[in-house]
Amino acid sequence: MKLSLTQENLSRALGSVGRVVSSRSSLPVLSNVLLATDGNRLRLSATNLEIGINYWIGSKVESQGSLTVPARLFSEFVSNLPHGAIELAATDNVLTVKSPHYESKINGIAADEFPLIPTISNDPVLTLDAGIMKEALVQVVIAASADEARPVLAGVYLYTEDNTLFLVATDSYRLAEKRIELPGDAPQAFSAIIPARTMQELVRLLGEAEGDVEVYLDEGQVMFRIADVELVSRLIEGQFPNYRQIIPENAETSFDIETAEFSRITKVASLFARESAGSIKVDIRAEGEVSVVSSDSEVGGNTSKAECEVSGDDGEISLNARYLTDALGVMKSPVVTFAISGKLNPCVLSPAGENASDDYIHIVMPLRT
Amino acid sequence: MKLSLTQENLSRALGSVGRVVSSRSSLPVLSNVLLATDGNRLRLSATNLEIGINYWIGSKVESQGSLTVPARLFSEFVSNLPHGAIELAATDNVLTVKSPHYESKINGIAADEFPLIPTISNDPVLTLDAGIMKEALVQVVIAASADEARPVLAGVYLYTEDNTLFLVATDSYRLAEKRIELPGDAPQAFSAIIPARTMQELVRLLGEAEGDVEVYLDEGQVMFRIADVELVSRLIEGQFPNYRQIIPENAETSFDIETAEFSRITKVASLFARESAGSIKVDIRAEGEVSVVSSDSEVGGNTSKAECEVSGDDGEISLNARYLTDALGVMKSPVVTFAISGKLNPCVLSPAGENASDDYIHIVMPLRT
Repeated sequence: MKLSLTQENLSRALGSVGRVVSSRSSLPVLSNVLLATDGNRLRLSATNLEIGINYWIGSKVESQGSLTVPARLFSEFVSNLPHGAIELAATDNVLTVKSPHYESKINGIAADEFPLIPTISNDPVLTLDAGIMKEALVQVVIAASADEARPVLAGVYLYTEDNTLFLVATDSYRLAEKRIELPGDAPQAFSAIIPARTMQELVRLLGEAEGDVEVYLDEGQVMFRIADVELVSRLIEGQFPNYRQIIPENAETSFDIETAEFSRITKVASLFARESAGSIKVDIRAEGEVSVVSSDSEVGGNTSKAECEVSGDDGEISLNARYLTDALGVMKSPVVTFAISGKLNPCVLSPAGENASDDYIHIVMPLRT
Repeated sequence: MKLSLTQENLSRALGSVGRVVSSRSSLPVLSNVLLATDGNRLRLSATNLEIGINYWIGSKVESQGSLTVPARLFSEFVSNLPHGAIELAATDNVLTVKSPHYESKINGIAADEFPLIPTISNDPVLTLDAGIMKEALVQVVIAASADEARPVLAGVYLYTEDNTLFLVATDSYRLAEKRIELPGDAPQAFSAIIPARTMQELVRLLGEAEGDVEVYLDEGQVMFRIADVELVSRLIEGQFPNYRQIIPENAETSFDIETAEFSRITKVASLFARESAGSIKVDIRAEGEVSVVSSDSEVGGNTSKAECEVSGDDGEISLNARYLTDALGVMKSPVVTFAISGKLNPCVLSPAGENASDDYIHIVMPLRT
């Protein structure tokens, strides 16, 4: 293998594929990144056996070949090189890297020990603007479960219904649902539960990407393609809970408030709620005031207030402050509606104010106090 | 105690004094910050029994008094409040904090349990521009020892000689010396070894400070005063090593190089030197080239080169890459001189190029290979 490419392209690609490398795998080759020529391009691949990435970059290929090298060392090394041309050459499992003033040899492992990252050659089930997909995932993935006790809850549920794509996640304490209207004719019907970790990786890959992301499904697998990058992941098997039944239809009490202000008074109250595992009370007065209260504990107590427009009666609900802060943190609209129906039913946060879209809800279950 | 002040001033003061609070002390009151009225000002104090800070801020004091409250909680709380006026009131060891929309109670500990932070009422032994002091400390403190095995090496040695202030630190592997010419008449003669941790704290306090810093010395103690802030610390007892004898007087080989370029080729080489505990070789060719070489190891090997102006013969020296990177990192001048006399003597780094001042040297001991 012998080729040349630019430091800028190689460094960017290594930054992306490097994140899925498992640094503590028992299989040494999994700490490596695969470099393989593919016509006039270089393919970089990395996998932790759950997620795999293939990343192609344009190169001047003199001779074909492939080799794997330690991902972390290679990535740090390349990122410290000056911009401009880099020459890569592989002989006897040693990669020689040359750039003006720098010459390194990196010991590798033969490419045939590297696991195959499968590709999916069906037609895509969905094509969507990368920016829209990223924004939707950021709003939803935060509600997925961090533990694997109930595997389906550690995923994001994607499905189409009529002309709408739904993205849903819940860890059973909170739930986020985003709806995206799909343009054109009726889209292909599909549903899939995709690991939250895969979705977090996709969010990073989407980064500042322009253009479209394509979604491919196959037996037990999903693939996302953004330009010259493919992210492949296993799917989660099982049935996603019938979540719609827990979304309250009406509210006894609701108010509109500036998202930043609500976030701030919640954060201040949460400082005093550490001893009570983050429990805070949202106290709504019909005359137009909301208080976030952390009850007295060993360190002290706090009441934070804001004026707001209230519809309905007085009301109160106890919540985990972190879930409320998380929800407000992914709310795009500058104004949010907070709605409750008594202290035993979940509260609903949704975008409000002028021009707010009606395509997102975030539900938080109450704490019983 | 009852008073009002601005969120901005209180938050800034808490940020500064909070850093010396020992969060894991066996004495609970040491996790607290002392609030005490002092005429028309509020004094905030914190100490870890080695370093103490007194910080005064202007306040509208209605009634005098004092109380200590948990530093971390109080600081986080205040930093999250909106800008503007804050009211503090203490009754029965409870601090009530009011600002528009926020009301909190924080349980405290009586002020008389808080240790006294001594002040020094002598005349200052030195008055220096805060910016000059900060820059000098940054360049020197990095060479101090991080462990206390030899206490004097865990400090920065300050002394005056003729019209010059010397700041010196060494961990026995490297040494940094900064000289500052003092204006006016002969300064007061003094010498003191000040803990490196105190100096790091002083660097932070000097931050963007304008004006002068005053240095006060007393039996076993040092105090720095910057406007309304006093930093008090114990001194280190003992004799600082007679360091001048290890500074080489002449060089067999030396070269001038751009500081950033030298730093970059060292960093790249160091990536390959992890197995050899950071050992790299600087190889100088009289015809005008320097290489930084990490010898072949299990991961591979690297040679990084730069062109430069060499005086004298060929030469080489083995160094710990981190010490070289550290030294280059605190070098202010865009060009640096690197000088050696054989592979067994220390190397000397000093500012070079146009307008470079001749007031700093950084010495790194060689590795014997």
